[in-house]
Amino acid sequence: MFIAKVIGTTISTIKDEKLTGRKLLILRQTDETGAPSGKPYVAVDTLDAGIGDLVLTAHGSSGRQTAITSNSPVDAVIMAVIDHLEVGGQVVYRHQ
Amino acid sequence: MFIAKVIGTTISTIKDEKLTGRKLLILRQTDETGAPSGKPYVAVDTLDAGIGDLVLTAHGSSGRQTAITSNSPVDAVIMAVIDHLEVGGQVVYRHQ
Amino acid sequence: MFIAKVIGTTISTIKDEKLTGRKLLILRQTDETGAPSGKPYVAVDTLDAGIGDLVLTAHGSSGRQTAITSNSPVDAVIMAVIDHLEVGGQVVYRHQ
Amino acid sequence: MFIAKVIGTTISTIKDEKLTGRKLLILRQTDETGAPSGKPYVAVDTLDAGIGDLVLTAHGSSGRQTAITSNSPVDAVIMAVIDHLEVGGQVVYRHQ
Amino acid sequence: MFIAKVIGTTISTIKDEKLTGRKLLILRQTDETGAPSGKPYVAVDTLDAGIGDLVLTAHGSSGRQTAITSNSPVDAVIMAVIDHLEVGGQVVYRHQ
Repeated sequence: MFIAKVIGTTISTIKDEKLTGRKLLILRQTDETGAPSGKPYVAVDTLDAGIGDLVLTAHGSSGRQTAITSNSPVDAVIMAVIDHLEVGGQVVYRHQ
Repeated sequence: MFIAKVIGTTISTIKDEKLTGRKLLILRQTDETGAPSGKPYVAVDTLDAGIGDLVLTAHGSSGRQTAITSNSPVDAVIMAVIDHLEVGGQVVYRHQ
Repeated sequence: MFIAKVIGTTISTIKDEKLTGRKLLILRQTDETGAPSGKPYVAVDTLDAGIGDLVLTAHGSSGRQTAITSNSPVDAVIMAVIDHLEVGGQVVYRHQ
Repeated sequence: MFIAKVIGTTISTIKDEKLTGRKLLILRQTDETGAPSGKPYVAVDTLDAGIGDLVLTAHGSSGRQTAITSNSPVDAVIMAVIDHLEVGGQVVYRHQ
Repeated sequence: MFIAKVIGTTISTIKDEKLTGRKLLILRQTDETGAPSGKPYVAVDTLDAGIGDLVLTAHGSSGRQTAITSNSPVDAVIMAVIDHLEVGGQVVYRHQ
């Protein structure tokens, strides 16, 4: 899984029928302190994550192993909202 | 999923029989404002996307989870045409 | 899928039994005009592609969705030979 | 598989129900001597690995081929803790 | 598939039970002449490859399509030992 920050949303009228009602968020991968870098990607939100949250995303066929995404043409899902990250015995990120 | 811009088309006479009649578009991944970068890739179009459109593409086995691509040797599919992208509370892209 | 150029061949005597008789070609990914860059990779040829041809390759489990590659330990297959590529309304590559 | 070093932990209250009770560790890929580089990623720990351990992680659908991760939305699993690494006839890493 | 050079071995006592007796080799991807570059990765050896050999590795679910790796949490397998590589009509690598 990647640690990623939710930075935005996408709206699509024309889409595969299995995506009806799905929330597609824009994310950027972060380092272990929550600092984002790299190109954005899009994942299905199954947990009501908010803009600015740090989350974990699962990719590929693993992105379809939720009740909401099974059998859908989606390759990334938010499967956890991060409360805190601990590295080297220190809390380096805490959800606010 | 990647945010990507449709930049062209590919034509092939010699191809796997399951690809007969499939539209194979050339795309480039973009950032969250729709600016393309990086190498092009090719995805099956299931939504009649046009040149210049911003779309979402699903990859790997997820690219085969549509009625048009199931059981085919394709690893990327356009599963949404983007209407608009919103980042930081601002609309940063709007389909025209 | 990637747009790729066929640049060579690999010969192996010791290999998984499911690969007997399979043609394994060396390719390099190209940009949308057919100019190669990046590291080479190897794909199973199901279409009698020739050295110098531009082709499309499908990867991962999608590489096993052909009659020749199903259930085999291969993760890339040539599933189309490109006739021409069109970008920005111009033909930027034509097979010769 | 990647060689990776365990550098931290993630805690999430809001998560997919299949993740309840799962230990999600933060790792960084290393070179063949155990020196880390690159962005962190997160994997399910099935082997009680500790902070600082070198491990092997399997990715994608292969990350779901353990009793603990099957059918879950996770795309990386720790499937071995490394005792030692040998390169060029020399032991270049030994677990302490 | 990647062209890769076998550079070492990994030893693990604590591992998923399906890995018992499996040989896990360290490899580095090479270019089309066999020159290695990039980060090392680990693959299951099913063909008794030796240190210094050039091999082909299949990744992801394709890495589980051998008798030895099926249903195991492994995402890369050596499925061919390369005898020679031919590029531009020249033999650029020959196994010794």
